Amino acid sequence: MDEGVHDHREQITELAQAARIASRAVARAGTEKRTAALHWMADSLASHEDAILAANRADLAEAAEAGLGAAMLDRLRLDEKRLLAMVRSVREVASFPDPVGETVKQWTRPNGLRVARRRIPLGVIAIIYEARPNVTSDAAALCIKAGNAVVLRGGSEAFRTNRAIVTALEGGLSAAGLPIDALQVVPTTARDAMVDLLQLDEYIDLVIPRGGEGLIRFVTEHSRIPVIRHYKGNCHVFVERSADPEMALDICYNAKVQRPGVCNAVETILIDEAIAQSFLPRLTDRLTSAGVELRGDARAREVSPSLQLATEADFATEFLDLICAVAVVDGLDAAIRHIERYTSSHTEAIITRDDSAARRFVNEVDSSTVIVNASTRFADGAELGLGAEIGISTTRLHAYGPMGVEELTTTKFVVLGDGQIRT
Amino acid sequence: MDEGVHDHREQITELAQAARIASRAVARAGTEKRTAALHWMADSLASHEDAILAANRADLAEAAEAGLGAAMLDRLRLDEKRLLAMVRSVREVASFPDPVGETVKQWTRPNGLRVARRRIPLGVIAIIYEARPNVTSDAAALCIKAGNAVVLRGGSEAFRTNRAIVTALEGGLSAAGLPIDALQVVPTTARDAMVDLLQLDEYIDLVIPRGGEGLIRFVTEHSRIPVIRHYKGNCHVFVERSADPEMALDICYNAKVQRPGVCNAVETILIDEAIAQSFLPRLTDRLTSAGVELRGDARAREVSPSLQLATEADFATEFLDLICAVAVVDGLDAAIRHIERYTSSHTEAIITRDDSAARRFVNEVDSSTVIVNASTRFADGAELGLGAEIGISTTRLHAYGPMGVEELTTTKFVVLGDGQIRT
Repeated sequence: MDEGVHDHREQITELAQAARIASRAVARAGTEKRTAALHWMADSLASHEDAILAANRADLAEAAEAGLGAAMLDRLRLDEKRLLAMVRSVREVASFPDPVGETVKQWTRPNGLRVARRRIPLGVIAIIYEARPNVTSDAAALCIKAGNAVVLRGGSEAFRTNRAIVTALEGGLSAAGLPIDALQVVPTTARDAMVDLLQLDEYIDLVIPRGGEGLIRFVTEHSRIPVIRHYKGNCHVFVERSADPEMALDICYNAKVQRPGVCNAVETILIDEAIAQSFLPRLTDRLTSAGVELRGDARAREVSPSLQLATEADFATEFLDLICAVAVVDGLDAAIRHIERYTSSHTEAIITRDDSAARRFVNEVDSSTVIVNASTRFADGAELGLGAEIGISTTRLHAYGPMGVEELTTTKFVVLGDGQIRT
Repeated sequence: MDEGVHDHREQITELAQAARIASRAVARAGTEKRTAALHWMADSLASHEDAILAANRADLAEAAEAGLGAAMLDRLRLDEKRLLAMVRSVREVASFPDPVGETVKQWTRPNGLRVARRRIPLGVIAIIYEARPNVTSDAAALCIKAGNAVVLRGGSEAFRTNRAIVTALEGGLSAAGLPIDALQVVPTTARDAMVDLLQLDEYIDLVIPRGGEGLIRFVTEHSRIPVIRHYKGNCHVFVERSADPEMALDICYNAKVQRPGVCNAVETILIDEAIAQSFLPRLTDRLTSAGVELRGDARAREVSPSLQLATEADFATEFLDLICAVAVVDGLDAAIRHIERYTSSHTEAIITRDDSAARRFVNEVDSSTVIVNASTRFADGAELGLGAEIGISTTRLHAYGPMGVEELTTTKFVVLGDGQIRT
């Protein structure tokens, strides 16, 4: 084993230990002090604009030289406007209600013990993410808001930018009298260092990987720390026979076209056979006129022969593009079976005027967000009213669906007695 | 790779897939049917008494031949009385309120979307445990209660017994019209088969290992599935200067002596220096008269020179025996620092008449159960009123502290609209 590896391991263990210790101070600081810290962090981010943009220019130059694509370069790029949005976002998080300290439930036992479940911070949260630098300030703000320390491991392309953002945020923490150790940056983007980090379940309570499926699988495979993740969003809209066709067209269009590159865009539209003859041609017109390529199953192509043939693989694909699979199904049961088979547990919607069909769909589809008569694009923390989003979980433990500040907390039992012993 | 390994892998993947499919039927069955199933399972357990006790005798004979110790043999042994207790326990679980379907929170968005978080089953839960056969029926009952399927992997010593118990339980499930695939037993206790099982995060949502620290570490290390666990319970009682000494003596005695071999027994007693002179000798008398060996730090031995000297390691040890470490600390802050250093995050108690000391202890100690003026022995699902306990978590994700039926569920977002689209 070469010395570099050893250096990483020690350094990363030390930073995780420091984060654990600092997390206690953040937890105990109380709402007022944490809110003040977030405002200081926002101020400091604004006042470090020059340093951050300079660091970003250096990252961009290196990335361009390394041949990074235009889309990636755009995700990496910061300017005054984007930085201002980051500052505003930190202030918005400051304005959320503080979940820490809330008594979630309380009751009294027959022996007089008063039992309460009280909300407390999770502790130390590691965020592993790719290029977009705004994740650095968003994640830091959300974690501190909920009383946690955070370990950030961004992509190599944004290394200088992230470093400069964290330096600014540390200034804010420090101004508020909180330990800067509560914000840690992994000092290298080497994969072996990430693997080292993922072993530290003694110091880190949760890992949230944000990025492509490859990154997420790598983290899941190598982590001893619990991981909250979603691999992909293969979202469905089922247009049930009683659906208002105008509403169905608007929702399908919105769910596919408004922003096709995101995880809550629809990827497969299922059409009840009872309305396929009337609805599918209109849907085809509406979507193809927006540049969407539709791929239909055999039954869909009977109705609209112009459609390309969808393969089995198409129904399992998150296109993230202006492509949409379409299938004609026998009705509600068949739609649910199709979803069960292909779902990524992200978001599914039904368009219907039949209450009992809506109720069955909501009860039987076990994805993290189930929607009646609205666009799948609402499966988002801010849109659902969580305030902001640290990520979306399609695994069921701890959090399922969009995760806000509350999902960065847990509860402990507080038991008040007057001398009770067990007999 | 030999063929046996391949056989396991395929067989285990198949049983996990079958559990996933069956979990949907259990989830959809509704409260009444699941409750009926639990009563049928209890009936069937009772009516299979002969077969279960015969299987247990065969396991016991083999275990005795293999040289298993008396304590282990006792844990493995079933008789009419123990089986009756298992039957009663299944009926008790049937009587709990059903958490599934509960609307945990709901709100309306400015655009009219109605958002709710609704409680749903976790899905498929794997329980990996050691000898005690009652875990088989308890775990199965709790998982089915909360609408889940369960994969059971018990110890090799109890293999025939567990098999016979599950056969009985399957009869009950089937009588209620639920699929017997919802109860799966791993057909081998080979370690490689367990490792195969732990890779199946596609089909299994949660693993709960119950047993010794070695088993739990093994599971954590090899699992891709989220694991809820506790390694040990190094519980503390802090006798603060204002404590009622009689209450403190009773609680320390109860916490150490009533059942020393369990995880919520106290392992270290911390005594405020202001009362050490008066309290420690009385504590020493009280505990040594019950056969407890006390190991004190240097300051404790100044007061009670008869104490053995505690080593650093003693303060980190879960004795699970009539041994107790004692330290004299400068006061509340020093007690909290000691706990921070040695805690296993299980349970800590303070004995005090000072409200502000109690409040600080409760706020600053971040163990899963924090107790004021009562025995640590109350850190238990049944004692805290959760109904029954599937385990205790000392990791913070999803559940922290004793876990009841509710902790075997998660929530999904249900969103009701009338045509909303994103703009």
